[in-house]
Amino acid sequence: MSDIIPQLSLDCVIFGFHDSTLKVLLLKWKNSEEYSLPGGFIKQSESIDAAAVRVLNERTALDKIFLRQFHTFGKVRRYDNDVIRQKLSHLIEEPIFHERVVSVGYYALVDYEKVFPNPDIFTEKCEWVDIDEVPELLFDHNEILNKGLKSLRLELSFQPVGLNLLPDKFTMPDMQRMYESILGKKIDPRNFQKKILKTGIVIRLDEVKKGVAHKSPYLYQFDEKRYKEVLEEGGLFFS
Amino acid sequence: MSDIIPQLSLDCVIFGFHDSTLKVLLLKWKNSEEYSLPGGFIKQSESIDAAAVRVLNERTALDKIFLRQFHTFGKVRRYDNDVIRQKLSHLIEEPIFHERVVSVGYYALVDYEKVFPNPDIFTEKCEWVDIDEVPELLFDHNEILNKGLKSLRLELSFQPVGLNLLPDKFTMPDMQRMYESILGKKIDPRNFQKKILKTGIVIRLDEVKKGVAHKSPYLYQFDEKRYKEVLEEGGLFFS
Repeated sequence: MSDIIPQLSLDCVIFGFHDSTLKVLLLKWKNSEEYSLPGGFIKQSESIDAAAVRVLNERTALDKIFLRQFHTFGKVRRYDNDVIRQKLSHLIEEPIFHERVVSVGYYALVDYEKVFPNPDIFTEKCEWVDIDEVPELLFDHNEILNKGLKSLRLELSFQPVGLNLLPDKFTMPDMQRMYESILGKKIDPRNFQKKILKTGIVIRLDEVKKGVAHKSPYLYQFDEKRYKEVLEEGGLFFS
Repeated sequence: MSDIIPQLSLDCVIFGFHDSTLKVLLLKWKNSEEYSLPGGFIKQSESIDAAAVRVLNERTALDKIFLRQFHTFGKVRRYDNDVIRQKLSHLIEEPIFHERVVSVGYYALVDYEKVFPNPDIFTEKCEWVDIDEVPELLFDHNEILNKGLKSLRLELSFQPVGLNLLPDKFTMPDMQRMYESILGKKIDPRNFQKKILKTGIVIRLDEVKKGVAHKSPYLYQFDEKRYKEVLEEGGLFFS
């Protein structure tokens, strides 16, 4: 029996938030202009969730990560093997893409600033790309990325997101920009503030943000206990 | 290469709605009191979605089914092999449960009355069980069922459900009972009607239900075009 489960892999859509923009971590393949998502195989001795944590740790050096399995991709022919072999012929002589592989998709939301991106053996760079500037990816990775983004957006509408993404103290407009960058659309600020406060996941501090023109906005902090409760209950709804 | 993908299977949580009750289709194993979910393996020549459709068709004789992949179960040790072998020793001499298998979970919502349940080679009966009366199942199937139910409930809160489950013409109370039986809780009738009508997925007919005491309730029909649009958009929200 092989050390890894045959015909099963995982792919990770790693989202980061920076400068009011949602970004995704891509691998650039050696001596080429080709990009893909990070991924890997599953050892016989590890659960698929543990394999996803390992892959993320290998690529980002992070160990505590918000990680979610979102879909398993199981078409007979997920991509055109000939095209892939042609694109990567300078790297891979063996037909490693010959066999059918089913892939489990995970997405992660990480703190952009805490990540140390590491490429793997096939790739020369691991870089952040704006969600609106993602190029054509190898394999079926655009499909996986899009499905991951859709799942994240859906999740955002019924579960709290933001702990570990925003700084320790943040303003309501900071939080709103994070939501808007993930959802890819504008939100009415009054409704946003009302809904967030109603959930109790944030606490207003007796402190305002300094160095801001005109009216200084209040600073907020996550109430981690309440945050975890709402995460359990699934009690947030944004339409 | 084997005809099936090694170490990968699928399990199906088949929900049906009848007499204001949510039910699930279980298999009763031959000469035992043990139950499990229907499931099977994935052929090299079929996608995992197609395999799920095939398994459902084999067990229910239905071919057009609302079917949703919801989670992939990938622990190293999903259940205690020794316990299973003991329970099923009268049926299976070979240690077929020896190897680690990752299983993709699907759930289906079917019209209870259109189903012709068929057991498989290991089982003697395929029967509907009330969701509140599910016994201890073989393998990790209680966990799979519970996760499937949670996914269905979540899905119900942002996507329309009910086409193919309710009769062609139904009253608002009929529809509300379906929602309540799936969600496992009471809903305020005025809010329910308002929210459903706002989505446009149902049309009120110029017809009332007869044989009902006092005020005869109006009959409704699904607007299939609008229903499909809302399904695409994911535009329904029930908290």
